[in-house]
Amino acid sequence: MWTYTTSLKWQPGQDGRAETAGRPALEINSPPEFGGKPDRWSPELLLVSAVENCLMLTSLDIAKRQKLNVAGYESTAVGHMEKTAEGLRFTGIDVTVRVKAAAAEAEKVKQAVLTAEKYCPVSNAMKIPVRLNVGVET
Amino acid sequence: MWTYTTSLKWQPGQDGRAETAGRPALEINSPPEFGGKPDRWSPELLLVSAVENCLMLTSLDIAKRQKLNVAGYESTAVGHMEKTAEGLRFTGIDVTVRVKAAAAEAEKVKQAVLTAEKYCPVSNAMKIPVRLNVGVET
Repeated sequence: MWTYTTSLKWQPGQDGRAETAGRPALEINSPPEFGGKPDRWSPELLLVSAVENCLMLTSLDIAKRQKLNVAGYESTAVGHMEKTAEGLRFTGIDVTVRVKAAAAEAEKVKQAVLTAEKYCPVSNAMKIPVRLNVGVET
Repeated sequence: MWTYTTSLKWQPGQDGRAETAGRPALEINSPPEFGGKPDRWSPELLLVSAVENCLMLTSLDIAKRQKLNVAGYESTAVGHMEKTAEGLRFTGIDVTVRVKAAAAEAEKVKQAVLTAEKYCPVSNAMKIPVRLNVGVET
């Protein structure tokens, strides 16, 4: 069993400050469309980035266990949110991955990334669909 | 409909770099117990902080709509992860909130925080339990 602990502080007239021991603090705001500042991370962006980065680290771990050589990994993730009768709701997250590998290992590396969705603890904590699209550059 | 877009880049021998337009970039690593560096945010910490901060911003929004005066808000959030047959899985997130308000509004402010769980889009995107414990300091 592992635990992940974060904390935050807010006072009137200030931004929220997200902290976790030993790491740089983050100033957090609502997204600008809901009254926040455009130069701060929002909870919505943190969530999308958490999913995206978990898939990356899980992919690299799977590739390493299979002794595959990943020469680069980039991705873009888009979280979709809608207003519903129950309030704002995420409806899904699309993650588009571009991974670099030698031609001989390209298909295995692609499969390692696709397999990550099964093992990534962050995407598995979500009830909304996480859709993964993977391209390999050789 | 709103979208939240993040991106990341990784190269062999480097940390992952999480970005989103106009905000400071974050260096991301696995948690130290899985081989990462202890001074970097991990996807696990980003997820827990996303839930925690969404509950805070939603609470403040509800309080504002009800014209309640919140004098301070602090919280700690703990995400629990276990190894299962399917891999690492989050089993729940506990969020402990300490909010400050005048005695006359204490109960209403507490209720505003408790109501946040119903409206926060991040906690509502999760399939794991998010447990909220709220104390009011007057």
